[in-house]
Amino acid sequence: MKSGTLYLIPSPLIEDLTTSIDPALIEIIHSLRVFVVEKSKTARQYIKSTIPPYTQQEITVVELNKHGVTEELDEVFKRLKKSESVGLISEAGCPGVADPGADIVAHAHNLGIPVRPLIGPSSILLALMASGMNGQKFCFHGYLPQDRTALAKELQRLEMESIKFKQTQIWIETPYRNNQMKEVCLASLKQNTRFCIAADLTATDEKIFSGRVGDWTKDKMGELHKIPAVFLLQA
Amino acid sequence: MKSGTLYLIPSPLIEDLTTSIDPALIEIIHSLRVFVVEKSKTARQYIKSTIPPYTQQEITVVELNKHGVTEELDEVFKRLKKSESVGLISEAGCPGVADPGADIVAHAHNLGIPVRPLIGPSSILLALMASGMNGQKFCFHGYLPQDRTALAKELQRLEMESIKFKQTQIWIETPYRNNQMKEVCLASLKQNTRFCIAADLTATDEKIFSGRVGDWTKDKMGELHKIPAVFLLQA
Repeated sequence: MKSGTLYLIPSPLIEDLTTSIDPALIEIIHSLRVFVVEKSKTARQYIKSTIPPYTQQEITVVELNKHGVTEELDEVFKRLKKSESVGLISEAGCPGVADPGADIVAHAHNLGIPVRPLIGPSSILLALMASGMNGQKFCFHGYLPQDRTALAKELQRLEMESIKFKQTQIWIETPYRNNQMKEVCLASLKQNTRFCIAADLTATDEKIFSGRVGDWTKDKMGELHKIPAVFLLQA
Repeated sequence: MKSGTLYLIPSPLIEDLTTSIDPALIEIIHSLRVFVVEKSKTARQYIKSTIPPYTQQEITVVELNKHGVTEELDEVFKRLKKSESVGLISEAGCPGVADPGADIVAHAHNLGIPVRPLIGPSSILLALMASGMNGQKFCFHGYLPQDRTALAKELQRLEMESIKFKQTQIWIETPYRNNQMKEVCLASLKQNTRFCIAADLTATDEKIFSGRVGDWTKDKMGELHKIPAVFLLQA
């Protein structure tokens, strides 16, 4: 028997679900009845916003688990093996990229289940495009240290790596610490290093500023508290 | 006067332009009359495939230049400053990501022109999602050395970096050297290292294989000659 396909389904970066979604993506969402998701509530809202041909009661939605493949997930993989296709959805963006889901994809590969990634928003990729920095070589580091001294030290290491490998360095921060991150960056990076913050990407009030540290002023970008943001540097 | 916006417009990864494109993206393409592009011919074909409300004679299409901002591009920036918006399009994917365009974006930032990145396909991002490897930390290296000995050495360095920083390592190859790249990878990477090739992404005959080097056989994935592919490892 031919197994089903594990579709990797990106979701909107912003809460406004009236945002445009690729019709090809909607068609696939509508063809599926089983979903593995990061959060059941928001995934169901997202699916509902596409006006599916099924009711919420007619679909199976299983939450991802930090502890790997649970009994419930094992059941999903059995259905995949029995030729039923499944959608993997994470919160705001692409499953498995700065988001959970990679374990499920790896497990599918181990079982020989075909995996198909679908086109959609990634704040990291959009930020890189928008930064004007080197997109031929780049590195995403996830979260940097919280402690100010350790953070300043790590930023200086990233600056050196950026020079050595001509790499753009990319990272994120928990949104309620964004202002502090900006402050430590402007205080510890070299004046000539290019620094970019891309906030609230794809939203109508998206804010992007990219320039040398020396050209930044403290009020540039304004308030970043609790606004999802991506940080980039190129030295 | 409020300046126009520089829109960063992704283009399909495959030649088949009947592929679905996000309606929001089409709407923006149709609102523009000036484009800066990697290759005039394919960009015009792409624009035409969206059934625009203008003829090809009614739009200005300026090619990107390796030597920076030419007189023709300077003219485009003057129009941007005079409130006209412009679209930046590269070949197959996102402008500025493993593709030209970053210089133009950086120049726009220097002039205070707003930049807006749009959602679309990136083979690097799709490959990372599909690999099942760590998407919390990853590094894209562009092209690795061509020489077999230098390549094997560099692959071993990437393996070590992958362990040290828990990073997924991503790179590309000129399509006519794909088979040789696969061969050198399978011969020089550790048996336990995870290795993925994602080829012909978004095409109907997309091929993705991800597994430990020890689980690969030479015939896995079949012929890769001249097929666009992304390579990934996690050690």
